[in-house]
Amino acid sequence: MAEYAAPVKDMQFVLEKVVGLAEVNTLPGWEDVTPDIVEAVLGEAARFAEEVLSPLNASGDKQGVRLTESGVVTAPGFKEAYWKFAEGGWGNVLAPSEFGGQGLPGALATPVEEMWASANLAFKLCPMLTIGAIESLHRNASEAMQQRFLPAMVEGRWAGTMNLTEPQAGSDLSQVRTKAVPGPDGTYRITGQKIFITYGDQDYTENIIHLVLARIDGAPEGVKGISLFVVPKVLVNDDGSLGARNGVNCVSLEHKLGIHASPTAVMAYEDATGYLVGEANRGLEYMFVMMNAARLGVGLEGVAIAERAYQRARDYARERVQGRPLGQAKAMPILHHPDVKRMLLTMKAGAEASRALAYQVSVLLDRARRHPEEGERRRCQAMVDLLIPVVKGWSTELGVEIASLGVQVHGGMGFIEETGAAQHLRDARISTIYEGTTGIQANDLVGRKVGREAGATAKAFAAQVRAALPALAAGDEDLRAIGRRLEAAVADFERAVDWIVVTFPANAPAVGAGSVAFLMLAGYVAGGWMMARSALAAAAGEGDPAFLAAKRLTARFYADHLLTRTSGLAESVVAGAGSVVAAGDEIF
Amino acid sequence: MAEYAAPVKDMQFVLEKVVGLAEVNTLPGWEDVTPDIVEAVLGEAARFAEEVLSPLNASGDKQGVRLTESGVVTAPGFKEAYWKFAEGGWGNVLAPSEFGGQGLPGALATPVEEMWASANLAFKLCPMLTIGAIESLHRNASEAMQQRFLPAMVEGRWAGTMNLTEPQAGSDLSQVRTKAVPGPDGTYRITGQKIFITYGDQDYTENIIHLVLARIDGAPEGVKGISLFVVPKVLVNDDGSLGARNGVNCVSLEHKLGIHASPTAVMAYEDATGYLVGEANRGLEYMFVMMNAARLGVGLEGVAIAERAYQRARDYARERVQGRPLGQAKAMPILHHPDVKRMLLTMKAGAEASRALAYQVSVLLDRARRHPEEGERRRCQAMVDLLIPVVKGWSTELGVEIASLGVQVHGGMGFIEETGAAQHLRDARISTIYEGTTGIQANDLVGRKVGREAGATAKAFAAQVRAALPALAAGDEDLRAIGRRLEAAVADFERAVDWIVVTFPANAPAVGAGSVAFLMLAGYVAGGWMMARSALAAAAGEGDPAFLAAKRLTARFYADHLLTRTSGLAESVVAGAGSVVAAGDEIF
Repeated sequence: MAEYAAPVKDMQFVLEKVVGLAEVNTLPGWEDVTPDIVEAVLGEAARFAEEVLSPLNASGDKQGVRLTESGVVTAPGFKEAYWKFAEGGWGNVLAPSEFGGQGLPGALATPVEEMWASANLAFKLCPMLTIGAIESLHRNASEAMQQRFLPAMVEGRWAGTMNLTEPQAGSDLSQVRTKAVPGPDGTYRITGQKIFITYGDQDYTENIIHLVLARIDGAPEGVKGISLFVVPKVLVNDDGSLGARNGVNCVSLEHKLGIHASPTAVMAYEDATGYLVGEANRGLEYMFVMMNAARLGVGLEGVAIAERAYQRARDYARERVQGRPLGQAKAMPILHHPDVKRMLLTMKAGAEASRALAYQVSVLLDRARRHPEEGERRRCQAMVDLLIPVVKGWSTELGVEIASLGVQVHGGMGFIEETGAAQHLRDARISTIYEGTTGIQANDLVGRKVGREAGATAKAFAAQVRAALPALAAGDEDLRAIGRRLEAAVADFERAVDWIVVTFPANAPAVGAGSVAFLMLAGYVAGGWMMARSALAAAAGEGDPAFLAAKRLTARFYADHLLTRTSGLAESVVAGAGSVVAAGDEIF
Repeated sequence: MAEYAAPVKDMQFVLEKVVGLAEVNTLPGWEDVTPDIVEAVLGEAARFAEEVLSPLNASGDKQGVRLTESGVVTAPGFKEAYWKFAEGGWGNVLAPSEFGGQGLPGALATPVEEMWASANLAFKLCPMLTIGAIESLHRNASEAMQQRFLPAMVEGRWAGTMNLTEPQAGSDLSQVRTKAVPGPDGTYRITGQKIFITYGDQDYTENIIHLVLARIDGAPEGVKGISLFVVPKVLVNDDGSLGARNGVNCVSLEHKLGIHASPTAVMAYEDATGYLVGEANRGLEYMFVMMNAARLGVGLEGVAIAERAYQRARDYARERVQGRPLGQAKAMPILHHPDVKRMLLTMKAGAEASRALAYQVSVLLDRARRHPEEGERRRCQAMVDLLIPVVKGWSTELGVEIASLGVQVHGGMGFIEETGAAQHLRDARISTIYEGTTGIQANDLVGRKVGREAGATAKAFAAQVRAALPALAAGDEDLRAIGRRLEAAVADFERAVDWIVVTFPANAPAVGAGSVAFLMLAGYVAGGWMMARSALAAAAGEGDPAFLAAKRLTARFYADHLLTRTSGLAESVVAGAGSVVAAGDEIF
């Protein structure tokens, strides 16, 4: 059985030669994040992911989780892995240093997070939600509340969750009905039902800090009447010790297509004690603050599954002898069949392009947070806001395609669960849905990120892509070919942006009709930009010639096989809305 | 829970207005297959699929099959459904009339088969394999062998299977090692192991007639030393009564991603009594005779799952109220969100295009069999040979994409198994693999079907597509737009064909590198041709105006959103081989 090997060398290449780690370790507080430190952190993270998390991936999928009278019981080995994770300090890599965290830059935390997701996506969701909850409380909660909850969360003794969705309110949070009744002591009584709560209960930690969206009695209708509450599973006494069990319970678990080892809970709140975070009616705003990080995290899951699926398919293709490849005289491993190579290169190119883009956005996020100049912070933030829905939507759609190709490379064995390829497809399939579906990302992209600002940031992005063209044109035949493809693709992108700008908001449904096509188009262009820079870095770089040659070949493959998808997508955007808009209920 | 409703009206429209049922009922022996008969048969078939097969689809998926000491036990209800199927005469719609079959034309059997696959893919595999085995024996076996086995098989009392694959020989049948030792009585002793045997054992029927590829002692190496044997599960006495149990057993069942109600068996043959079919060493040839029908059948599974996934997603989208669509003032069913419409139209257009293509090929197959003029039979056979790998490869790849979109339309609910959308994706996932992977279909298409004959049939196909252009150009704006897209797409196809013709066989690996892209390109063009003819028929047709308007809108959508994929695919074919061919083992 193929086991995961963290692609540390690839990750370092992207960080150091493509996205500019140097742009991060000149930021205040991160001066010591040098290539040596990066190498040490990635090396340790790789060992943990490979040795502790990866071996539980298949068994966790098979055994899943179950709900007992005393709560959720997770798959064998997961609790122990969680404690190794917590004790190793992995949960606090991003956490603020005043509460015991390591406060690493996102650019370094991102590859680490990718490894966890590759090794064991179902496991990774628990610490990721805790990291998100820590960030939310750190930004929005009172000092006293932070002191009460954060140290144990940063330490990993307590986990955090996000409770947004209700049965009637999936993506539409304006419909949230969970109610919060203020009590005389300043706390609230929370009552309602939440669904799809990842790690809503588990047996890893002694307490779970639920962040819950609810509506205070008498609050305004819609999204402006939603507040954020902390509802601990076990109440916390003033001295920090654990008190009585709170009125919150996991009442059932979902039977899902994938991520079986991750409990997806229906949570019942019955007069549970809740603590208001920040000000009333600003709950959605507080959740949205974390949204970029969360969406980047899910986009990264697309990268991570793609990488894992690629490794498994490649290893199988190296071993499986079958058939005589076109133009060959004898039976060989299927890796030598042109179509198998085409599939593996699609997987490899897709994983590398989406990885580089996610890391690029991490660097931009770090700069948006800490760059000394406000103008640069603002420029980086605008680019992050543009690219986050692309990273989330495109990388996960590509991740599903790549995981499905992974099944295909295995032939009939891919359909057999023991092979492991099918799990990656099943696990990947959630990533285009949760944390906002691809359609919701696309809606955000064409509306808030392109339409409302008349395409300003999108055009700045296109100009950045174009800035890579002269160096490509001055290179060898591969680089020139990549440049020609990239130029055509960015022209497709600009054409689509221009169309959106003149069409939005007057004909918003037409823009909506092409929104996912536009998101995918933006993704292929952004990925093409990253791969072009990777090829340029490889052409200029020193080091292992085979490694650098592989980078260049993969970039060329991407240009010829993935970047070529942009022309059709641009047509869909600019000339495909008519039938969609015209389609009434009676058409279906 | 959404239940399946057979799209009888759509099927009739395709048969009568698009692919020309009239071209079938002028053939000898099928003169009585009039629209009335078609309506009656499809109506009965729809009732059976909807009322008997469809209700078992989800429960069969959940309960699966198990191996006991007395053999395979199938899911509750399946055995009863099988007997209703057999007693209703459904298993013999295609069977030769001299053995009690109905001998319907493929053009009529194809929509019936589509219904079974939509309603319950796992169930459908058993009768389909029996139908294939009947056809093989009818064509290749001696009169005495036919008399011995066919009547009970046609009646449905016995089932048939195909035993090709061995652990070391997946797609590469030259590696078959199962051996056949001739005995003094003219029978053979068969010994070996076969894997991935669909319905290798079951509890529906009292006997199972296994068709087994094996190598007679001393036969030549490779595919020219493989013979075809009948190996009954229970030996059949000369008087037709059942005798002793034969030396063939199901020794384990696979744990699969989908089609859980269909047993996938490892079969052990130990000195089993086998009867040689036809002549020695011609086994592969005998199997290949059935290949077109079998590949059409699996291509149709892509259509069938697409239809079922579409219906479920559409029904959910009609009911689920969520969010305010772009440009709308209040929350509405998600069917009104432009991106949900885009997804549903993609599903609908894909299902309709691939259905029409499969039916077209069925008509061509009927004409290739029974047309009185040899030239026409040969012309139709050549077109069938060209299009079969396209139907198999493209329709199933599209089916997987559509089933995945079906999950996406459901949002978070799509990931929950009880919803049912995920089953369609899991079930569909086998269709691009079995009966020859997409890569194998593509290899056949670019090599045997295009390269070897210098593109003659491919060019004749393109000319047929072009023949639809004048009528489109003379139509309204929708038809003209469809015509422009189709013209561009067929030009992409011709460009790719020209490139293959000059490149094959001198640079076979380069052709292989673009083979799947070419297959998909051919599929989109063929589907576009069918949709254009559907739009023309709708424009000219009488009848329900809403139905005809939907046909035209769906064709326009297909042109703008699916046919636009051809330009990128053509680029991959003609200019994308370099990196694939250059990629050696060290790249991965």
